[in-house]
Amino acid sequence: MKHRFSRFLLAMTFVTTALIPAASADEGMWLFNDPPRTLLKERYGFEPSDAWLAHLQRASVRFNSGGSGSFVSSAGLVMTNHHVGADALQKLSTEEHDLLAEGFHARTHAEEKKCVDLELNVLVEIADVTDQVNAAVKPGMSAADAFAARRAAMSTIEKDSLDKTGLRSDVVTLYQGGRYHLYRFKKYTDVRLVFAPEQDVAFFGGDPDNFEYPRYDLDITFFRAYEDGRPAKIEHFLKWSQAGAKEGELTFVSGHPGRTNRLNTVAHLEFLRDVTYPWTLQVLRRREVLLSTYSERSIENARRAKDDLFGVANGRKARIGGLDGLQDPAIMGKKRAEERALRDAVAANPKLAEEAGSAWEEIDKTLAVNREISRDHALLERGHAFYSRLFTIARTLVRLAEENEKPNAERLHEYADAGRDSLEQDLFSEAPIYADLETVTLGDSLSLLMEARGADDELVQKVLAGKSPKERAAQLVAGSKLADVAVRKKVAEGGKKAIEAADDPMILLAKLVDPAARAVRKRLEEEVEEPQRQAYAKITNAKFAIAGTSVYPDATFTLRLAFGPVKGYEEGGKAIPAWTTIGGAFEHAAAHNHQPPFKLPKRWMERKDKLKLDTPFNFVSTADIIGGNSGSPVVNREGEVVGIIFDGNIQSLVLDFVYSDKVARAVSVHSAGIIESLKSVYDAKELVGEIGR
Amino acid sequence: MKHRFSRFLLAMTFVTTALIPAASADEGMWLFNDPPRTLLKERYGFEPSDAWLAHLQRASVRFNSGGSGSFVSSAGLVMTNHHVGADALQKLSTEEHDLLAEGFHARTHAEEKKCVDLELNVLVEIADVTDQVNAAVKPGMSAADAFAARRAAMSTIEKDSLDKTGLRSDVVTLYQGGRYHLYRFKKYTDVRLVFAPEQDVAFFGGDPDNFEYPRYDLDITFFRAYEDGRPAKIEHFLKWSQAGAKEGELTFVSGHPGRTNRLNTVAHLEFLRDVTYPWTLQVLRRREVLLSTYSERSIENARRAKDDLFGVANGRKARIGGLDGLQDPAIMGKKRAEERALRDAVAANPKLAEEAGSAWEEIDKTLAVNREISRDHALLERGHAFYSRLFTIARTLVRLAEENEKPNAERLHEYADAGRDSLEQDLFSEAPIYADLETVTLGDSLSLLMEARGADDELVQKVLAGKSPKERAAQLVAGSKLADVAVRKKVAEGGKKAIEAADDPMILLAKLVDPAARAVRKRLEEEVEEPQRQAYAKITNAKFAIAGTSVYPDATFTLRLAFGPVKGYEEGGKAIPAWTTIGGAFEHAAAHNHQPPFKLPKRWMERKDKLKLDTPFNFVSTADIIGGNSGSPVVNREGEVVGIIFDGNIQSLVLDFVYSDKVARAVSVHSAGIIESLKSVYDAKELVGEIGR
Repeated sequence: MKHRFSRFLLAMTFVTTALIPAASADEGMWLFNDPPRTLLKERYGFEPSDAWLAHLQRASVRFNSGGSGSFVSSAGLVMTNHHVGADALQKLSTEEHDLLAEGFHARTHAEEKKCVDLELNVLVEIADVTDQVNAAVKPGMSAADAFAARRAAMSTIEKDSLDKTGLRSDVVTLYQGGRYHLYRFKKYTDVRLVFAPEQDVAFFGGDPDNFEYPRYDLDITFFRAYEDGRPAKIEHFLKWSQAGAKEGELTFVSGHPGRTNRLNTVAHLEFLRDVTYPWTLQVLRRREVLLSTYSERSIENARRAKDDLFGVANGRKARIGGLDGLQDPAIMGKKRAEERALRDAVAANPKLAEEAGSAWEEIDKTLAVNREISRDHALLERGHAFYSRLFTIARTLVRLAEENEKPNAERLHEYADAGRDSLEQDLFSEAPIYADLETVTLGDSLSLLMEARGADDELVQKVLAGKSPKERAAQLVAGSKLADVAVRKKVAEGGKKAIEAADDPMILLAKLVDPAARAVRKRLEEEVEEPQRQAYAKITNAKFAIAGTSVYPDATFTLRLAFGPVKGYEEGGKAIPAWTTIGGAFEHAAAHNHQPPFKLPKRWMERKDKLKLDTPFNFVSTADIIGGNSGSPVVNREGEVVGIIFDGNIQSLVLDFVYSDKVARAVSVHSAGIIESLKSVYDAKELVGEIGR
Repeated sequence: MKHRFSRFLLAMTFVTTALIPAASADEGMWLFNDPPRTLLKERYGFEPSDAWLAHLQRASVRFNSGGSGSFVSSAGLVMTNHHVGADALQKLSTEEHDLLAEGFHARTHAEEKKCVDLELNVLVEIADVTDQVNAAVKPGMSAADAFAARRAAMSTIEKDSLDKTGLRSDVVTLYQGGRYHLYRFKKYTDVRLVFAPEQDVAFFGGDPDNFEYPRYDLDITFFRAYEDGRPAKIEHFLKWSQAGAKEGELTFVSGHPGRTNRLNTVAHLEFLRDVTYPWTLQVLRRREVLLSTYSERSIENARRAKDDLFGVANGRKARIGGLDGLQDPAIMGKKRAEERALRDAVAANPKLAEEAGSAWEEIDKTLAVNREISRDHALLERGHAFYSRLFTIARTLVRLAEENEKPNAERLHEYADAGRDSLEQDLFSEAPIYADLETVTLGDSLSLLMEARGADDELVQKVLAGKSPKERAAQLVAGSKLADVAVRKKVAEGGKKAIEAADDPMILLAKLVDPAARAVRKRLEEEVEEPQRQAYAKITNAKFAIAGTSVYPDATFTLRLAFGPVKGYEEGGKAIPAWTTIGGAFEHAAAHNHQPPFKLPKRWMERKDKLKLDTPFNFVSTADIIGGNSGSPVVNREGEVVGIIFDGNIQSLVLDFVYSDKVARAVSVHSAGIIESLKSVYDAKELVGEIGR
């Protein structure tokens, strides 16, 4: 009997391992300190050297505005997407010069425009601090104490590292709490705009073509990192490929995928399907309608809201794709089977069963709490009820004063010393604030607050102070002086006394809301996040025990390595080729009567004859990417640039939860298309020269 | 003591009467059989004769697509708004000819285009049937029995009237159940398109200018009613004013306001604020984003979805305005004070106290039930979960077969004999159905169903049949044959057997959903609507007893008379003049760089020099109107056309709940602007001649 049982168990284990979401095919957003060496060797006969990895890592750049990029010259030239640079372009724009729409081209260093609040990070070092972080949490601690202890440990590790190295130091939570790594970054805060094309070609096809393929977008922008007032000298920068990527060629993507939920339990995915996604989509659709109607009123309104509206519409389309996946019984069935296999494997191993057997129920408990509090957390702490830059500033000032009174280790994490520079970079940003737009967005979100919590709710009544949501918003925005950076600095310097004495209505509102916002955050941290970390750590360790290191962590907006060949796919029985050409862009525009968003810039129409129309423009690969990867360099085996990621196709939107290389594809601008555009449309010889082509 | 009490009571009664929402100023959507004679005489020294009223009533036209209009020639010429005619224009359009965008002009009767499914109604007679309807409801009946008895009485009255007169006969519920009137209509179902301007001038300013003022819109369309294949001979048609309306001149509006909620209790208004409006707005915003993104993909998509998208955006803007009012403590405070006053007056009169004292609590009870069921009612019965014309057709077929088996008086009201012609006009409409658009809208609404009821819900699982919402929608639309009118007719003729044997997937879906949809409808009818009718009847009778007949009923999409002078207003300290000019349209376009929706049609730009630019174009008056009044003729004391209602300003959106003539204004196209446009832009001499100018 034992033999048979054993055979059964073996068979089980075999099935199990196959079903456990370990990496397969071209799957994976791999850690640079734990790259998929075996996979790459076996599938592609490629063995990246440590130097190859270190070079690519150091040449990769993170944009604090939410994207990726890379150094492409020794003089600090950084390439990213136009839609990643858009935040900086928007903040540099005025009613007279809409850089987002018109583009920009500095032909000399002197003409380069300094960005308002852009911060770039380059990952220098990684250290595993899992034991240190976990050591702070003693057995038998309450979740509240465990959370506080863990937060203190993380803040202390970061502070010590910052003091020791002078580098930005973040403890990154991996595997939903299974591992903790300390990331040290070199930071650039003097970043200047070098070149941006017109939005009409950068985002050609607009929302209808967003997350779609075939595409024809020149979604690039170049910045330059400065140090001490001079272009930064960069040792690790990427060279440009002469040929560009060919069909079937293996490519690598080095960038910062923002967030995936692949390791989530099925119950946790159901929570996302039933609670998180519907709520977020409701807020996004509401904001989209609000910003669209605001934008339609005048050309200047459209300019003011442009980048926000893009972000909202982009988020809406991505999340609808994600929700489609969560609502698809085929995908959920696959996740359910994987989870069943893992739980069976855990149950079959007495040691694992004892260590991890209860983890799923522990997560279920956190989800029950989160169902109760998530709406209030979204409204009050994530600010869905206060859609206003002025409010965000006011809250930061209020909390800064309060947190500064506490020891570093006890502060809310974003107010700890290690992140202070970045916080101030944001808080004291000179980015323009438009009172009319603020009034519109705050008014609508106060109306949402009233709808969600009810008109008779005590907090709602206090917030509205006897006024209608729109009247109240108008009063708050008109009365606040926080659009003035000098005022913010003065309040920040004044500390707790300045907050106590403040009569700015937005500060008074932030003070009014803060106890409730902190309370719901506390519940989330202590009753949801901390127990989840502990439970996911158990599951992760079980997975490691069963499937080995072929498990990569979910995305965390930190540097990852993905890979995959340039490869077309099939859609509705039709073969979709791996790339498009520049000529295709003109055909696509004509097919839509050149109506926006299918209108190419004037300059493109004029230069059509000068362009080599058969130059590859965009291409797809099987690399495993997600939002945040935008702007990631795509390199070949030699580490040379063959493209830049800017999107995924519509079939890739389920990559949040599950990878597939059947039809999901990463979409890139082709290196050859970039050079051809720079040469023939923009006469950007100096830029092409600097890139080395 | 008695004396003092008496004096107190008198004083109270005085306050009460002033606060009870009886008509004041230029308020009121008056019944033609109960016009505000005293008010008009006292305020304006005007005494309309019976003949004056009868003529205006008979010249007024109701569009079953949701608006108003009027006869303006003896040969059946009907004037309405472009946005009222839009439904017909959309259904006559093809990929080659977008009548909505391009406009249309028939210079001869032969060129006039027959509308697909437009029905016009002219109110011929009104009879009070309150006693008959109420007599059916016996004291002590359960709400369910009362509902059934009342419905039976109404259906029987309608059927008898139809049989006797051959006229469309509707029992209209007034004062939320306080009165029942039988309306008899002459019907026109052969209606042909005569003239429509381009949408760019009809809806100049688009959504940003919708519900705003100043305005510059030529929001008109002309149809012609036919009888027996010839232009209908019309006795009561409106003559055109030579001068048009002057500032301060008293005007009258005869049209069909759709729905107001002014007589609602405060608790009922709170229900609208907390439940109805937020839900409806969520659905509207969702549909707006869906239809916008669908439309953006191609010019043909935009054409297909145009009228739906307009309707959705229009509804969204109107309802946001309404919700603003409900969320405004000033307005709710006023409603509360009025209700307090009425309840005090009722309490102070023993007879009224006995008859009506409990009505408010009775309504509260219905609201508690409605809170429980309203979401399911919206999803399943109002079809928010099945946003598809094919589904609506399938459901009508399923119910038609089932209801036809019952005696007339026992059927769902819309399946009773009296309304059968109109139901079939709609069911067998040749209006085009686009499979791609159906798939998109049904898929999104099935996703909403899953979000709202949960993935594990039994009904949801049955509806989705193991597929994702989008896959299921694609399967249903691709498999259904109901786009073919001949198929619909065959199923309808086949009765119950045809439905039992049907394998059309959309019919199977309608059958699957119907028990749940009927169940929630039954609860709404019996536990909410019927008790509300009874309670509101008590309140209405109390109001009549206290305030006399100066109380008009809430709007019910039946003919009403409103009035008020042409009058500007003040906004933010700025005087807004009573009218705009044609020249202002060109200035408004230039101020927006001629970008859509501020782009005038090519023909207008070409004819600018021929136009008398100082001709009045749009104007405002204090008349009390609401959605449904669109297209209403505006006449002077002589009953001559001085304009046509097409909108209200943004301040008028609270008229749903409370009237004010301080800044709320009705917006009309000026009669002179219409003639000048027809002559100088469209060379429409024959039309101007027929109108008699």
